[in-house]
Amino acid sequence: MSRTPDARARDIQTKQIQDNITNVEKHFGDLCQLFAGYVRKTARLRDKADLLVKEVGIYADTETPNLKCGLKNFADQLAKIQDYRQAEVERLEVKVIEPLKAYGNIVKTKREDLKQTQTARNRESKQMQQLEKTRQRNPSDRQIISQVGLVCNKLLDQAESELQRATMDATRTTRQLEETIDDFEKQKIRDIKKILGEFVTVEMAFHAKALEIYTTAFQDIQNVDEEGDLEVFRNTLHPPDFQSRLEIVRANSKLSLNRTGTSMSKSGTMQSRTSSRQRKRDDEDDEEEDDDEDEDDLEEVTDDEH
Amino acid sequence: MSRTPDARARDIQTKQIQDNITNVEKHFGDLCQLFAGYVRKTARLRDKADLLVKEVGIYADTETPNLKCGLKNFADQLAKIQDYRQAEVERLEVKVIEPLKAYGNIVKTKREDLKQTQTARNRESKQMQQLEKTRQRNPSDRQIISQVGLVCNKLLDQAESELQRATMDATRTTRQLEETIDDFEKQKIRDIKKILGEFVTVEMAFHAKALEIYTTAFQDIQNVDEEGDLEVFRNTLHPPDFQSRLEIVRANSKLSLNRTGTSMSKSGTMQSRTSSRQRKRDDEDDEEEDDDEDEDDLEEVTDDEH
Repeated sequence: MSRTPDARARDIQTKQIQDNITNVEKHFGDLCQLFAGYVRKTARLRDKADLLVKEVGIYADTETPNLKCGLKNFADQLAKIQDYRQAEVERLEVKVIEPLKAYGNIVKTKREDLKQTQTARNRESKQMQQLEKTRQRNPSDRQIISQVGLVCNKLLDQAESELQRATMDATRTTRQLEETIDDFEKQKIRDIKKILGEFVTVEMAFHAKALEIYTTAFQDIQNVDEEGDLEVFRNTLHPPDFQSRLEIVRANSKLSLNRTGTSMSKSGTMQSRTSSRQRKRDDEDDEEEDDDEDEDDLEEVTDDEH
Repeated sequence: MSRTPDARARDIQTKQIQDNITNVEKHFGDLCQLFAGYVRKTARLRDKADLLVKEVGIYADTETPNLKCGLKNFADQLAKIQDYRQAEVERLEVKVIEPLKAYGNIVKTKREDLKQTQTARNRESKQMQQLEKTRQRNPSDRQIISQVGLVCNKLLDQAESELQRATMDATRTTRQLEETIDDFEKQKIRDIKKILGEFVTVEMAFHAKALEIYTTAFQDIQNVDEEGDLEVFRNTLHPPDFQSRLEIVRANSKLSLNRTGTSMSKSGTMQSRTSSRQRKRDDEDDEEEDDDEDEDDLEEVTDDEH
């Protein structure tokens, strides 16, 4: 038996709805996996940065006070960024991965809805076809009936009204299905907008924080007083007793020490501060107080000697 | 033979310098590896994001015009961020990894310098010790000489001046070594400041760009006109011939269609535009022109019907 045009149209529609659901299932699933991969790689990046933070800290402990302090601060800032990266990871999981994952169940439920509605519609559609066939037979039937009498006319009227009711039912069920799929479509657009919007928001929050913290980290590094650290370094290389011996040798010498005088006078100038500075090396917080000397000051000292 | 205090001091100094070089070698090497790991993980994140861009594009092609356009724009922005991430990766390699890697050779050269200088210093130190021993024997020697005559006095004066010269040479070589290691220390502080500064600068440039581009991406997503797309979706679900049949059924019906009238009239209103809209679906660039209809317009149409 061939399908009616209505039934064919409904089949096309049902196919469209099924395709639509399958499409959402596929692409939301793929997006879910890829966002999950993105989040995983972000977590790996955080892990690597954590190791970097640790190593910068370890290296800092081997360095002269100003650089040590700068490196420690830098490591602290880098660690803070990783905390925000961790927050990024957690928020992406909650606001992007989970909602996308939830679509697996939403789609499943919607597919069952579709199946149920379709079953009802098929039943109604069959009934309608049956009744239409009855009506098509009516002309001859009516002739027979007019010959037999009007007794069965009422039965035929009843069949007509049943046909109309079946048509209305089919329309209602179709509309119901359309509303269901309409809601699904509406929800889907809203959800993908919301999910991608959340993704962008979470990412932006992270980038903004990273930008802010790196600004501080940059200052931490730039503010490291090289000259201050070089003094400390030179002092550790010239233990006081060795230094005084060199000074004696130099004093006895008749040779010009113009070229080497600078390093000597530096050593001499710094000598009195060595012990207090070395005590301070154990005290990270006070290191910056030592930064108030720069190269110009040292050169002045040197010039005074000549 | 026991070492002189000068020699012991010099040994301590040499040990310090060697430790310093070894320390830099170790930590710059570790930092290099960890930064390289960080860069690699960044590249992996870029790869994942690239896959995400691709999938969003594929998904977009299956969607209604406004969402399709929004998704395509979103994917474009996300792709742009990956281009900047790629630039980040390349710049970190050039400005952070390479300079740190270069320290392997710098340290090697410096260690050879140290070895050469140390050899020279040891030679001089030995010579000096020899001469000092000669001088210590002088008092008795001088007595003998005064008895024997002043002939050898000149020889002793010569030994004295040789001792002084040797002392000066040792001092000069020591100073040379100190200058070398001083330069190395100075350069090291400058380099680590520069390298970490570059790291922060490159990272900041990326975060700033990402922030800027995500702002646009957010708008692309938020601007998707849901209602416009729902109309398109509804039209594809109601093929014209099926629709007209439903209309006939409805016209024949005596039932109140108050509740369902809205969807019917929507379908009717949109019907004339369906074909032109469907033609446009293949033409991505023109899609936004379809967005100028919203729910209020539709409700007005419905109200007019009642």
